[in-house]
Amino acid sequence: MRAVVWDGQLRFVVDYPDPEIQPGWARIRVKTVGICRTDLELINGYLGFSGVLGHEFVGIVESCEESRWIGKRVAGEINVACGHCSWCQKGQGRHCPNRTTLGIDRLNGCMADYCILPISNLIEIPEGISDDRAVFIEPLSAACEILEQLTLSGSERIVVLGDGRLGILCAWVLSTVVSDVTLIGHHPEKLMLSAWNSVKIAQDSNHCTGTDVVVEATGSAAGLAEAMTLCRPRGIIVLKSTVAVSAPVNLSPIVIHELTVLGSRCGQFRHGLSLMEQHPDMPFESLITNRFPIEAAPAAFHRTAQNSAIKTLLDL
Amino acid sequence: MRAVVWDGQLRFVVDYPDPEIQPGWARIRVKTVGICRTDLELINGYLGFSGVLGHEFVGIVESCEESRWIGKRVAGEINVACGHCSWCQKGQGRHCPNRTTLGIDRLNGCMADYCILPISNLIEIPEGISDDRAVFIEPLSAACEILEQLTLSGSERIVVLGDGRLGILCAWVLSTVVSDVTLIGHHPEKLMLSAWNSVKIAQDSNHCTGTDVVVEATGSAAGLAEAMTLCRPRGIIVLKSTVAVSAPVNLSPIVIHELTVLGSRCGQFRHGLSLMEQHPDMPFESLITNRFPIEAAPAAFHRTAQNSAIKTLLDL
Repeated sequence: MRAVVWDGQLRFVVDYPDPEIQPGWARIRVKTVGICRTDLELINGYLGFSGVLGHEFVGIVESCEESRWIGKRVAGEINVACGHCSWCQKGQGRHCPNRTTLGIDRLNGCMADYCILPISNLIEIPEGISDDRAVFIEPLSAACEILEQLTLSGSERIVVLGDGRLGILCAWVLSTVVSDVTLIGHHPEKLMLSAWNSVKIAQDSNHCTGTDVVVEATGSAAGLAEAMTLCRPRGIIVLKSTVAVSAPVNLSPIVIHELTVLGSRCGQFRHGLSLMEQHPDMPFESLITNRFPIEAAPAAFHRTAQNSAIKTLLDL
Repeated sequence: MRAVVWDGQLRFVVDYPDPEIQPGWARIRVKTVGICRTDLELINGYLGFSGVLGHEFVGIVESCEESRWIGKRVAGEINVACGHCSWCQKGQGRHCPNRTTLGIDRLNGCMADYCILPISNLIEIPEGISDDRAVFIEPLSAACEILEQLTLSGSERIVVLGDGRLGILCAWVLSTVVSDVTLIGHHPEKLMLSAWNSVKIAQDSNHCTGTDVVVEATGSAAGLAEAMTLCRPRGIIVLKSTVAVSAPVNLSPIVIHELTVLGSRCGQFRHGLSLMEQHPDMPFESLITNRFPIEAAPAAFHRTAQNSAIKTLLDL
């Protein structure tokens, strides 16, 4: 099959072996894939991954032992938990220490004609949601995770740092429950696309000190430092982006102002899909800055690394 | 008066002007002072402080407009809040943005014959508590702050990193509500003094992965990195020590494991004093490794900077 492989170099190949499925798993014919910042981190050495890249997809179930799934259009949760450990028993498989992760950690990803996932990871996409929207369920669910972790009254003042795809989605999601949300980024062309719902946009944070909740989604080491200057005493900084770099950062403001720094990662797809259904006007399509056929994956990665890109899709 | 002054160099002087009191303030004749790691940080440039050092003391009120305080033996909360801002109105004067801090930020400290503080900052020391115990109320209250910030069930597994004075006090305080507390440090002679109540001691953290709560009290940049390796997914890291250095640290485990990092600073003296009264066997005296007359303050600072020191006192 065709596949985008990272094995120390980024390659498009046509002769990658088709994946075999085990009992309880499904083989999915991939239709569309999103390229994520994490993919760029992986080809910079993050987690030492080697194999087929990709973890955001929409596709059609081609084979599995539960016939009702065959032919269904699906997205899939990316963490494959062991099902046996104490975390799995608590329903927290996303933190299973034995988990593999689609296209990220010891499990071939979805930038290929086929990928495989446990049937229990799949979620059916309702008819009214296009492929181009459905491919956003993964990052949208990651943004929704903040709502699962924080108890928000609605009256908070929230700042989201970073006008990349994740920052924009976090701002949109938060604006569904809090009216005072400001997205701060340095790219006017991205900010213009971000002003959905009540979300305010700004190119600098000069007027944002004393903020109750700051979401760090810049993917840069400077983001946390800026978040610490904006957050009010006893406020909350939500860290959304994993960055591979180890950078100097003076953490004493966390102690002095008794800040809470909350790490926030993947979310549950049912939350992302539910929010997507509730808000048919959430303009995901406007975030698609480029699309490439899978054969052009190296060029697509190059484009994704440019600052002006928000979301790049690969079509199969 | 005699005073220990930092103005770019550390000096003991005999001709420092006596402090004048304003309405609502008290002048206190200082009896005993503790030297704290923060004092060492200040003479390394932390916060750009200049003036009389010192913020842990016990002394006698010599003059103030409320006569009932005259002659009373007291300790004093170190943050002097404005009393007017929204933080002060909420009773959170410790986070008042206009506050000064005794011997730390724009307010002369207590390493002198006299210091001044608002009367509302004072707490009377009961007769049964010696000066040498009372001088620990400030750091004990800082340790007690963790109990105010966290809701602990008692069944948690807690690790405290750092066998300095603050780490030891945190372990002792936590052991009053949680039975499984391990203190980890690299100094056998300090660890030996730390094993109060149910506190377990260890020289390495090899058996401490998957811990529910990790308290970082090493005062070193490496402490947070170690805390991230020990903390279970969705666990809590309490940052207790402010360090002046900006050091590289890879924060991605906070996001991947959805950790909560909680900054924790000063506590309320009434909590520290209350705990001290409840536990007359808490062996503060054993933590006093050295005491010096105030005239020998530079030598006392030198001694405090050595790894083997836990608590150094200055007598006036």
